[in-house]
Amino acid sequence: MKSLVMKELKQPLQLDDREEPQPATDEVLVELHAAALNRRDYWITQGLYPGIRVPVILGSDGAGVVTKIGNNVPPHWQGQEILIDPGIDWGEQTKTQSERFQILGMPRDGTFAEFVTIPAACLHPKPPHLDWNEAAALGLGGVTAYRALFTQGVLKSKQTVLITGIGGGVATTAMRFAIACGATVLVTSSDDTKIAQAIDAGATGGFNYTQDAWHKNVVSKFGEVDLILDGAGGAGYGQLIDLVTAGGTIVNYGATAGPPQQFDLFKVFWKQLRLIGSTMGSPRDFQAMLEFCRAHQIRPQIDQIYPLNEGNDAMSRMQKGTQAGKLVLAIQ
Amino acid sequence: MKSLVMKELKQPLQLDDREEPQPATDEVLVELHAAALNRRDYWITQGLYPGIRVPVILGSDGAGVVTKIGNNVPPHWQGQEILIDPGIDWGEQTKTQSERFQILGMPRDGTFAEFVTIPAACLHPKPPHLDWNEAAALGLGGVTAYRALFTQGVLKSKQTVLITGIGGGVATTAMRFAIACGATVLVTSSDDTKIAQAIDAGATGGFNYTQDAWHKNVVSKFGEVDLILDGAGGAGYGQLIDLVTAGGTIVNYGATAGPPQQFDLFKVFWKQLRLIGSTMGSPRDFQAMLEFCRAHQIRPQIDQIYPLNEGNDAMSRMQKGTQAGKLVLAIQ
Repeated sequence: MKSLVMKELKQPLQLDDREEPQPATDEVLVELHAAALNRRDYWITQGLYPGIRVPVILGSDGAGVVTKIGNNVPPHWQGQEILIDPGIDWGEQTKTQSERFQILGMPRDGTFAEFVTIPAACLHPKPPHLDWNEAAALGLGGVTAYRALFTQGVLKSKQTVLITGIGGGVATTAMRFAIACGATVLVTSSDDTKIAQAIDAGATGGFNYTQDAWHKNVVSKFGEVDLILDGAGGAGYGQLIDLVTAGGTIVNYGATAGPPQQFDLFKVFWKQLRLIGSTMGSPRDFQAMLEFCRAHQIRPQIDQIYPLNEGNDAMSRMQKGTQAGKLVLAIQ
Repeated sequence: MKSLVMKELKQPLQLDDREEPQPATDEVLVELHAAALNRRDYWITQGLYPGIRVPVILGSDGAGVVTKIGNNVPPHWQGQEILIDPGIDWGEQTKTQSERFQILGMPRDGTFAEFVTIPAACLHPKPPHLDWNEAAALGLGGVTAYRALFTQGVLKSKQTVLITGIGGGVATTAMRFAIACGATVLVTSSDDTKIAQAIDAGATGGFNYTQDAWHKNVVSKFGEVDLILDGAGGAGYGQLIDLVTAGGTIVNYGATAGPPQQFDLFKVFWKQLRLIGSTMGSPRDFQAMLEFCRAHQIRPQIDQIYPLNEGNDAMSRMQKGTQAGKLVLAIQ
């Protein structure tokens, strides 16, 4: 099978012809129609992830058809059109993942290939309103956005939510979820084009965070916000503490800009803030996310679709961070 | 009436003879039997509080007898033995105080006097199991401890809670609440005597935070903790993030050691932590706190009782931070 393989750190992925893997007793073999990239894939190529092994096929997100099932897998999955929950062994608790938890695509071989084996517990029927590319684009970003926004952030309709760094896969998906939920959605970016796209898609306001005092403009135009969804951290984190309303919540699902340079704990306790971390999502979050997408006919925003053999171009675009929405690999 | 008056910043309080105040229509006059100190009183003498005015009678906590009532106050309060909820105008929301919120004792004259006028909304019948000094010692520290531990921290029996800086009024009261709730209670201090006292009072373990790697000892002896109650912040905050369990909570009700010097946002999102600020408490928190104290016959820990005219000695002890429990002024 054709596979994009990471053989060394910081080198382009290599297109190999590999033997088709065989599913274990609790697993299935999926013939992939599409895969999607996540920032995680890029971090791994840079060595910025614990326990990296090579060679490995990257890729957490995928959608396709089940072509072979292990002995312990219910037979109704055979031939099903599915999308993959890339979370494996989350564990029993909803509050946090177990120590066994892993994400598909390193250490286990992932979806940047014609076939992948996955535990049957990761299977979900493909929502009928999505095409293959959209289904693949929903997985990791979708569940991360859903958990951060609803499970951890407890967003309600009529609240105001600020989503930072619009353009990233989690942020654009979260924006669509929040709009569907009936919230007032504000976004930030360093790129005015992405802000304009977000407003076209239904966001109420957008702010370029490279401008001085942008956060004061948020407050003067829309008031303090109830919830902030942030994947950046870094120097701008203090501004988020300023513009969230008293009793409000900031959910962080990442820190791509590094740790905050200062952390004003006085404001945190006086404003009675809730600063909440969020990572990926539980199987329950994934199921709830799919139901929400079906109910509201939500499609993830796709930036660009590449054939599998141009996967390195997709990785370069991820590295530059210029995309608006998900980067997808169309496989067959 | 005898009153301890702050006339200038950073000077001893002065014992004055003042005219007895008169209650407004929604207020009552309370003849105080006891008052209690809070760190807030000391901060105000140092100018470390917004909107300081002088001269002013400090003091948030008090217990006594209602001797005069305003025209709109229900007559059953006349002659009642009461303790004071020092929170005024919390507002409608439970999540956070309103912008009108203030604490008794600056800007409004407080309880370091023979009489005080307060809004009738601040009155609660004195719990019968408490003497005057204990009733006075319960107010601000009690509601702060209750909200931080239960409303914000959602402590459950069988969980493990770490309370930092045992000795302070909020920390010692929170420790008694947490023990009564059936939690495993661990404490920290820089003072081994305070740790020994806490263990005598029912804490399961204590750790001197001036020792290297104390937080690793917590984990090796008791495992990671579910909830941390912290009023310090500062350099030690990073250790708290290390020793709280994945999915766990750190509640901050203060930052006496200043803002944290570093803030590891990566750990916050990967461990799915909840960092929650807490200030004082709502009228509902106060009511719930009193019911909890009645149900479990909880008495606040008193460090030392001073006559009103030795109030500056009590303030000095507060400044040094060597007390274990509340500092009380016995008034009559």
